[in-house]
Amino acid sequence: MTQKVLLTGGTGFIGRQAIPALQSLGFEVHLTVLEGDRTSDLGKDLVFHSCNLLNFEQQRKVMAEVRPSHLLHFAWDVTPGAYWSSPENLRWVQASIELLRGFSEFAQGTRRTVFAGTCAEYDWSSGHCSEENTPMLPQTLYGVSKDSLRRIFDSFCRGKNISTAWGRIFFLYGPHEHPGRLVPSVIRSLLRDEKVVCKQPTHLRDFLHVTDVASGFVSLLKSDFQGSMNIASGHSKSLGSVVSQIARMFGKEDLITLSPQAANDSNRPSSLQDPPEISAEVSRLGSLGWAPRYSLESGLEQTINWWKAQPL
Amino acid sequence: MTQKVLLTGGTGFIGRQAIPALQSLGFEVHLTVLEGDRTSDLGKDLVFHSCNLLNFEQQRKVMAEVRPSHLLHFAWDVTPGAYWSSPENLRWVQASIELLRGFSEFAQGTRRTVFAGTCAEYDWSSGHCSEENTPMLPQTLYGVSKDSLRRIFDSFCRGKNISTAWGRIFFLYGPHEHPGRLVPSVIRSLLRDEKVVCKQPTHLRDFLHVTDVASGFVSLLKSDFQGSMNIASGHSKSLGSVVSQIARMFGKEDLITLSPQAANDSNRPSSLQDPPEISAEVSRLGSLGWAPRYSLESGLEQTINWWKAQPL
Repeated sequence: MTQKVLLTGGTGFIGRQAIPALQSLGFEVHLTVLEGDRTSDLGKDLVFHSCNLLNFEQQRKVMAEVRPSHLLHFAWDVTPGAYWSSPENLRWVQASIELLRGFSEFAQGTRRTVFAGTCAEYDWSSGHCSEENTPMLPQTLYGVSKDSLRRIFDSFCRGKNISTAWGRIFFLYGPHEHPGRLVPSVIRSLLRDEKVVCKQPTHLRDFLHVTDVASGFVSLLKSDFQGSMNIASGHSKSLGSVVSQIARMFGKEDLITLSPQAANDSNRPSSLQDPPEISAEVSRLGSLGWAPRYSLESGLEQTINWWKAQPL
Repeated sequence: MTQKVLLTGGTGFIGRQAIPALQSLGFEVHLTVLEGDRTSDLGKDLVFHSCNLLNFEQQRKVMAEVRPSHLLHFAWDVTPGAYWSSPENLRWVQASIELLRGFSEFAQGTRRTVFAGTCAEYDWSSGHCSEENTPMLPQTLYGVSKDSLRRIFDSFCRGKNISTAWGRIFFLYGPHEHPGRLVPSVIRSLLRDEKVVCKQPTHLRDFLHVTDVASGFVSLLKSDFQGSMNIASGHSKSLGSVVSQIARMFGKEDLITLSPQAANDSNRPSSLQDPPEISAEVSRLGSLGWAPRYSLESGLEQTINWWKAQPL
């Protein structure tokens, strides 16, 4: 029987990179798309379903039509800055629960689903985030919404004979990222010869190229691992070193200021307290046999080249 | 300004008992009711709104019409036996989130809401359940759904200037209880002179008369306490002693068998493992100045009299 995956968020930053990985494993790929979404650059042999996931009737219609064996769910509201506390998080919890209900009713065959979670589910005071040992203690509505959805997801699917895994996204970069986020904003500033101030240069974060994030999710989907899994590089870097590396690639290190004093980041609620370290345990991901395509250096180079080809 | 409360589940077991308590505190009481619900015995000066809470458009219309200052949310699917693992739990999470969204948008004045939670959110291996010290470790989809909803509820309302509390229901009894549940099934069997087998006579549970459960919730709604609060008696009793007490009131103790061997309770999934003790810390509830109207003895007597007046 054909393995049919229903992919949500397939036109988004991570989802679009999952498409070739899914196809190379033989999946027939069905995507939910919004009216007006640009789909011409997503690839060939795709099945598009016009569907606003926040509309449950439309969702249900697509699920009944596709009857997928697999569900890979990325869609969420991740408007930079706003998404940490946006009330839209509540609508995405509702819509994600509706996907579970529909999948439970209409899925055929393997009945395997992977949802995208976040490192913001963890207690960030722990620094190193391990699936097994780090407590869950989200401090934002985004983190709480994902964490709560995961609890429902695990409990519901256990009783419904659905195989599940939950992939936790850390920090990422690559083509098609929102220009307001760290790596694109640095690249775009340097492309315009503008100065860049890195406000938290000593903070350690785990960055992974979006292509590798997507292939990690697809490996997870194809596996029979059940539970939560960090999708990350396992090598955390200081924000200062990431910004400096980009500048070196441009030969514009003089435009960079590493400024540990300016601790305020208006994009995030102060309660988050932007911890000094958010690194990821990746032994579970390694056990899938997955390996990243990009190092930080080759990934940033690919990303810079992509941005150079875009209109500024 | 008039204090207007929107009450959900107002025709149900607990909700209907909350009505007189709300009115005696001066609330204008608005109830969501389903078409066909019997409302004639609920009291006077009530405002009924025909609304299926699972229909978000209907919900939104009522919320916009009432513009309540307070929201007291009891409605949920609690079909005996089934509700522990029913997929309906997912729909009630969705519907409850929708109530939050609507309340956040349309509430006026005090902006205070109390939702009904459950002792099944706690780690039942703890025995004694304290809001402050007992870990949350629900083992059923019902418990997970309520626990997850509470996490979203707390996080969302904190950012929306809504005052919130979460009341955790333990074990209860009283008029209008579903006949399939413990106390009514014992009473109805004895009314028919049928034998009663109590399968877990040594298990300790905290029972509270439904009128007192409801008045506890109304006290909580009227207070400015924020957080979670057990709504319980603080005096746990063995199931055997509760059943025996009912039998004594009928003078039919010979019909009772206390049978510790028969440990299977087909109404609950085996993973629950029906712990030997589920008792409640009630110092928070006591701090509201609330006191129950009924002792277990007087509450059972009132309940027996109510059942005697019903057709068998």
